[in-house]
Amino acid sequence: MSAIKIGVITASDRASAGIYEDISGVAIQDTMKEYLTSDFEIVYRCIPDVQKTLEQTMKELCDEEGCCLVVTTGGTGPALRDVTPEATENVCNKMMPGFGELMRQVSLQYVPTAILSRQTAGIRGKSLIINLPGKPKSIRECLDAVFPAVPYCIDLLEGPFLECNEAVIQPFRPKQK
Amino acid sequence: MSAIKIGVITASDRASAGIYEDISGVAIQDTMKEYLTSDFEIVYRCIPDVQKTLEQTMKELCDEEGCCLVVTTGGTGPALRDVTPEATENVCNKMMPGFGELMRQVSLQYVPTAILSRQTAGIRGKSLIINLPGKPKSIRECLDAVFPAVPYCIDLLEGPFLECNEAVIQPFRPKQK
Amino acid sequence: MSAIKIGVITASDRASAGIYEDISGVAIQDTMKEYLTSDFEIVYRCIPDVQKTLEQTMKELCDEEGCCLVVTTGGTGPALRDVTPEATENVCNKMMPGFGELMRQVSLQYVPTAILSRQTAGIRGKSLIINLPGKPKSIRECLDAVFPAVPYCIDLLEGPFLECNEAVIQPFRPKQK
Repeated sequence: MSAIKIGVITASDRASAGIYEDISGVAIQDTMKEYLTSDFEIVYRCIPDVQKTLEQTMKELCDEEGCCLVVTTGGTGPALRDVTPEATENVCNKMMPGFGELMRQVSLQYVPTAILSRQTAGIRGKSLIINLPGKPKSIRECLDAVFPAVPYCIDLLEGPFLECNEAVIQPFRPKQK
Repeated sequence: MSAIKIGVITASDRASAGIYEDISGVAIQDTMKEYLTSDFEIVYRCIPDVQKTLEQTMKELCDEEGCCLVVTTGGTGPALRDVTPEATENVCNKMMPGFGELMRQVSLQYVPTAILSRQTAGIRGKSLIINLPGKPKSIRECLDAVFPAVPYCIDLLEGPFLECNEAVIQPFRPKQK
Repeated sequence: MSAIKIGVITASDRASAGIYEDISGVAIQDTMKEYLTSDFEIVYRCIPDVQKTLEQTMKELCDEEGCCLVVTTGGTGPALRDVTPEATENVCNKMMPGFGELMRQVSLQYVPTAILSRQTAGIRGKSLIINLPGKPKSIRECLDAVFPAVPYCIDLLEGPFLECNEAVIQPFRPKQK
C-alpha cells in the first residue's frame, strides 16, 4: 500500500530566499507528527509569494504526489504580495468556507487583527487544501480547531483512513446513514 | 389571491432512485407546517445530485411556480457528488453569506464536522433559496436559527406576508425607516 | 505631507434625492472624528443605489482622491436595489471575508435579521473598502468591532499611520517578525 502523503507549502518570499528559517513549515510538520499515528510522509515546498508558483505547487502536490491533505502557511493577509487564498481558489473545484470562518473566529479570541486573515480551504479532486496563518502559535490554534473534521473529510473524498493520537486530537466521524 | 408557495428540493441520488425514503424532505415540510399559520402550499421535488438538474429545478420553483422560499436539503458536503451550493450560486443573482455562517456556527455546537458543510443561501429574483444540511436533526437546528429572519427577507423581496406560530418561532421585522 | 483622506459613501436612492437627510453618512463621519487623533480629511459622496455609480465612486475615492480607507453605508440587504456588496467585489482585487463575518456576528447579538446583511470588505490597490449597515446604531456597533484591525491593515497596505484616541478605540498592531 502506498504511504499517506501530506503536503506542506510555505509561501514566503524571505524564507524561500533563505533570509530566514521557515519555522512555520516546521511547526506544521511537528503538529502533524503529534496528531497522526498513521504512517505518513511529508511533501514539503518552500516557495515565494507568486500566485502562479503557488498554483503549480498545489497542483503538483495534489495531482502528481497524491497528497490527501495540503496545508499552506503564509500569504493570507491584505498586503500586495499575499496571494495564497487566490491561488487556492483558482486550483480548487469546491470551496469550504467553514474552515476560514472557524479559524478567524478562533484567532479573534487572541487578536482583533484576525479579521485581516483571508485564509480559506477547498477541494481539488481528492485532496483537501487548507490555508493556515503565518505564525507558529496561530498555526497551532487554527489546526487544533479544524483538524477534528479533517479525517472524515478525507474519508468523504475516498482518501486514506487517518488515525490520530486521541490524547492530542479527537477526530470526529459521524455515523453514515 | 394566489396561495403562498414554498419549494422543497431534496438532492439525493439514493432517495430520488427510491433506495430509501426521503425523510429530510418530509422533515422540512413538517417544520414549515409547525412554523407557519399562513395558508401555504409545498412544491416538492426529489432529484439526483446532478448540478444541471438542481439548477433547472431551482429555476422552475422560483420562476414558474413562484415560490417565495425554496429550501434544499442534501449535497452540501465535500464529496464529488455534492454540488448543491454550486447550483445555488449559479442560479442566484445575490448571495446571502450570513445564512451559511450562522448555520455552520449552530451546527458546530453539536459536531466539529459542521465546517465541512458548504451550505449557502441567495436570492433569485423575488425568491430566497436556502441550503439546509441532509439530516433531519441538523435541518431543524439550522431552520430554528435562520427562520426568524426569513419573513422579513421575503417582505424586502416584495413577496407574501408570512405569519408564524409565535409559540414555535418568532419572526423579527425591524421597523422600517 | 499630504493629509490622510477617508472616503465615506452613502448609497441611498432617497438620501441622494434629498428626500431625507443622510444621518448614516453623518454618523460615520462623527465616529471617525471620535476615533482618530491623526489629522484627516473626509471625502464624502451621497449617491443612488446604482451599481455602476457605486463602482465609479469607489474607484474615484481610491485611485484619484487617494483615500486609504473608504467606508460605505447602505445597499447591503437582499432587496432588488441593494447592490453595494456587488459593486465592492467588482472594484476590489482582494476580498476580506473576516470583516463581514464579524460584523454580522456582532449585529446578531441585537437582531436575528443581521444574517440578511451581505456587507463585505476588500482591498483596491492601497485602499481598504468596508461596507457598513444603513442604520446609525448598527454602524457604530460594527465599526467598534472591526476598527481595531483597520490601522494595521492600512500599515500593511503601506498607507498612512493612523493614530487613535485609545480612550475610545484600541487599535492593535502585532509585532512584525
